[in-house]
Amino acid sequence: MSDTWANLGIGLHLEPAGRRVRAGLEQRIRDAIQTGRLQPGTRLPPSRTLALDLGIARNTVAEAYGQLVAEGWLSARQGSGTRVSEHAVAAGDRPAPAPTAAGRVRYDLRPGQPDVTLFPRSAWLAAARRALTRAPYDALGYGDPRGRIELREALAGYLARVRGVRATPDRIVICSGFVQSLALLCATQRSGGARRLGVEAYGHTLHREVAAATGLALTPIPVDAAGAATYALTGVDAAVLTPAHQFPLGVPLAPERRRHAVEWARDGDRLLVEDDYDGEFRYDRQAVGAMQALAPEHIAYAGTASKSLAPGLRLSWLVVPARLLEAVVEAKRLADAGSGALDQLTLAELIAAGAYDRHIRRCRLEYQRRRAHLVAALHRGVPDARVAGVAAGLQALVELPAGVGEDDAVAAARERGVAVEALAAYGATAQMHAPALVVGYGTPPQHAFSTAVARLCAALADITPASSR
Amino acid sequence: MSDTWANLGIGLHLEPAGRRVRAGLEQRIRDAIQTGRLQPGTRLPPSRTLALDLGIARNTVAEAYGQLVAEGWLSARQGSGTRVSEHAVAAGDRPAPAPTAAGRVRYDLRPGQPDVTLFPRSAWLAAARRALTRAPYDALGYGDPRGRIELREALAGYLARVRGVRATPDRIVICSGFVQSLALLCATQRSGGARRLGVEAYGHTLHREVAAATGLALTPIPVDAAGAATYALTGVDAAVLTPAHQFPLGVPLAPERRRHAVEWARDGDRLLVEDDYDGEFRYDRQAVGAMQALAPEHIAYAGTASKSLAPGLRLSWLVVPARLLEAVVEAKRLADAGSGALDQLTLAELIAAGAYDRHIRRCRLEYQRRRAHLVAALHRGVPDARVAGVAAGLQALVELPAGVGEDDAVAAARERGVAVEALAAYGATAQMHAPALVVGYGTPPQHAFSTAVARLCAALADITPASSR
Repeated sequence: MSDTWANLGIGLHLEPAGRRVRAGLEQRIRDAIQTGRLQPGTRLPPSRTLALDLGIARNTVAEAYGQLVAEGWLSARQGSGTRVSEHAVAAGDRPAPAPTAAGRVRYDLRPGQPDVTLFPRSAWLAAARRALTRAPYDALGYGDPRGRIELREALAGYLARVRGVRATPDRIVICSGFVQSLALLCATQRSGGARRLGVEAYGHTLHREVAAATGLALTPIPVDAAGAATYALTGVDAAVLTPAHQFPLGVPLAPERRRHAVEWARDGDRLLVEDDYDGEFRYDRQAVGAMQALAPEHIAYAGTASKSLAPGLRLSWLVVPARLLEAVVEAKRLADAGSGALDQLTLAELIAAGAYDRHIRRCRLEYQRRRAHLVAALHRGVPDARVAGVAAGLQALVELPAGVGEDDAVAAARERGVAVEALAAYGATAQMHAPALVVGYGTPPQHAFSTAVARLCAALADITPASSR
Repeated sequence: MSDTWANLGIGLHLEPAGRRVRAGLEQRIRDAIQTGRLQPGTRLPPSRTLALDLGIARNTVAEAYGQLVAEGWLSARQGSGTRVSEHAVAAGDRPAPAPTAAGRVRYDLRPGQPDVTLFPRSAWLAAARRALTRAPYDALGYGDPRGRIELREALAGYLARVRGVRATPDRIVICSGFVQSLALLCATQRSGGARRLGVEAYGHTLHREVAAATGLALTPIPVDAAGAATYALTGVDAAVLTPAHQFPLGVPLAPERRRHAVEWARDGDRLLVEDDYDGEFRYDRQAVGAMQALAPEHIAYAGTASKSLAPGLRLSWLVVPARLLEAVVEAKRLADAGSGALDQLTLAELIAAGAYDRHIRRCRLEYQRRRAHLVAALHRGVPDARVAGVAAGLQALVELPAGVGEDDAVAAARERGVAVEALAAYGATAQMHAPALVVGYGTPPQHAFSTAVARLCAALADITPASSR
C-alpha cells in the first residue's frame, strides 16, 4: 500500500511548522488527484505508515485525510481504508489523464536524474534570500555573458578543491545545463573549422543530437571495461568523454587511456570535452581528479548542478581553455546574453556557506546505500546478473543473465510496474556490449526504492532460463 | 553631494528590521569602497540627506557612518563632512580600480535597461518561497522544453488581458531573454529555408548580430515618424518589428502600416516577429494591442521580463504560430533543454498573486514622471531640442538643435559626467534620421534622475549655436 503512494510521485516538501505540514500534505494530495497521478480508487497508505515514511505525526496525516474526505477528494470506508474518490477528478479543473495502461510505470528506475526529493529546499530558499538581499544592483542588469563573478569565484575554489580542476574565475562560463555547455563548445569548434567530433559509442542520445545540430559529424568511439577506446580517436577534430564514470557503462577511464587522450588532445592541438556529470559521487574511494588538470589548454571541463542539485535549475559550468574563451563567450552572448543571475547568486551563496558540500555528502550517503542495496538484492535474487562498473554515480549497469535479452527484461520489469532502460537505448551504433539494463537509483524517492528493486529482481528472476539459474 | 553618492551605483536593498538596515548600509558602503565605486576622498552625503533619500532614520545612517569611521573605511573631519578614507582601499582585498578618468560616467542615461532599484525584491522572495514550497517534484527534474506549465498558463491569461495577445499555454515557449527568443526563431527560419530577414534600420546592434549569427542575411527597413516603412518589406522571407514603440525612435507603427505588415505576412505565408519589449509602458493612453492578434498564425509575439522586472532574470516568452511550434520547441530543446524552473515558477506566482501588475503600475507611474520631467527640462533648457515619439517606454529620442552633431552632444554630456547614446549607435546603415540622442530614463535611480537631466540640458545648451537659440 505504502508503495502505491510512494511511487506516484507525490512529493512532499515539509515545512517545519505543524499547521503547514498538514496544509502542504493536503495540497499535495489534491494536486496528485487533479493531475491524475493518484487515480480514482487508489488506496492511500494507512496514516500510521505514511506518518512514519514522512517523519511527521500520525495525527497530522489523519487530519489531512479527514479534511480531504470532507472535501470529497477521498473516501473512507470501514475495512477498506482511505481511497481516492471515484468522482474526485471531476472536482478538478484539469482534464482527466489517459486511462491506465496495463504497463503503467509505478517505479521509475530509469537513469539520468537525481532524487529530487533530496533537493535542499530550505537551504536553497535561505541562500536565495541572502543572495537577493545582498545582490548589487548590477546583478539585476545585463551582465557578463560568462555569468556572475560571485558564482565563478565560488566554483573556481570548489572545483579545485573537490575535482582538482585548474580554474580561474575568468575562464569559467556559466551555462544553462550541460546541453548548452555542449552546444556552445560544439558550435565554436564547428565555426573554428572542426568537422568531426568523437563521442563515446554509449551515451545520451540528446547529447549526440545537440552536437550533430551544430553541423559536426559524429564518430562513435568504442567503449569497453576500460572506458572509451582512445586509440580510436583518429580522424576526429575534437571529442567528448566521460572519464570519471562512463555513462552509462559506469567504468572510469583507465589510466593509460587517460594519458593517451591527453596526449591526443595536446599533441594534435585538439579539444577534449570532459563531461564530469557526476564527479562528486564516488563511493568506494576518492574520485579520480578531473583530467582537465593535465592539459587545461586542451581540455574543457564541463560540470553541472543537474545531478548534484536538480536538473530543473538548468545550471552548469564550463572551464574553457584560454584560446577558446573568446569564441565561447561570444557564442554564449549570442545565444542568450548570459544565464539568469538569481540562481547563480544563490548557488554561490550555497557553496560559500558550505551548504552545497553538506548536501552532496548527504546525497552521496543516500546513493551509496541505494547502490549497495541494489547490488545485494540482485546478488540474492538474480545471481547470474552482474553489476558492472565502479561504485559511483546515480546509475548501475546490470549485465543480464545468459539467454535474457534486453527487450524481454525491460518488458518483464514493465509488467511489474518498473521502468528501466535497455543499454541499447544509449548506443550510437549497433549493439557491441553484452545485453544489459541501465538502472538508475536516483529517481525513486527513498521510501519506494527497496520495493522498486525487489520488483525488478523478481521480474529478472522470472525470465532467467532455468539453465542459467 | 547626494548625487555623488546616488550615482555611484551603491544600491541599497533595505530589510525591514532596524538592525539589518544599518548592517546592510554598512556593507554596501564597504563593498563600494572595496570595489572602487567609492573612491578615496569621495565625500558622502550628509546623514540627513541620505536618510531622506533612503527613507530611513537619520540615526541609522549616522550610526553606520560612525561604525565605518571606527573601522577606518571612512574619515570624518570637522567642516568637511564624511569622506572615504585615503587608505581605505588598501584595507580591501580587491585590486584598486583604474584611476579616475576625466570623463567618468556618473549619470547613466543610456537606454535599454529599467531602473533595477525598483525591482520588487521582497515580493519576488515571497513568491519564490511560495513557489518552491509548492513546487511539485517534477519541477526540479527535466521538463518540457517550452517551460513550466504554471508560467505558461499565467502568461496566456496575462498577455490576453494586457496586450490582447491570442495565446494558449501550449503555444508559449519560455526563453532566456529576447536574445534567445530571437535566436531560436531565426535559426528555425533559416533551417526552414529562409535567407533574408528584414530588420528595422534602427535597433539594437546585438539583435542584428544574433540574427546574422544564425546565417540569415539582414535587410534594413527604413524607419520614419510612422514606424517601419513596411512597403520596403520586399525580398525578405521574415521580419522583426517593434510595432508598439519603435526602438529607439519611440514611435508606434502607423495603423495603415500595421495592416500592411499583417497582410505581407499572411498573404506571403511569412513570419513576422513582434518584439514587444516594453508594451506595458504607455503613458498617454491605452497601449495599442499586440499585432499578433491580427494574424496569430503568421506573427510570433515576443515578450520579456527584462524591462518589466530586470534583465538579470533572463526570462522571456514567445507565442509561436502553430506551424512553427514544433521546430521552435526542438531548437529550444537542443539549445538548453528548457529554461530554469525556479524563476519561472516564481514569476507565475507573482502574476497569479497580482504582484506583477502592481509592480508594473508602480514602474509606469515612475517612468511617466521621469519622462515628463525630461521633456519639461529640455523644453526649458534647450528649447530647440525636440523630444520625438510617444509617451511610452524607457527611452526618448531627443532630436538635437540645428547645428549640433551627435558626437559633440555625446562628448559634451560626457564632460559633465552624463552618458547618453547617439542615435547613430543604433543604425544598421548610414545616418538617415536627423541627429538625435537616445536618452534612457530607466537607469538612474530615482534620486539621481533630476540632476542627471539638469546636467544633460546644461551640456546641450552649452553647445547649441547662438543662431539656434
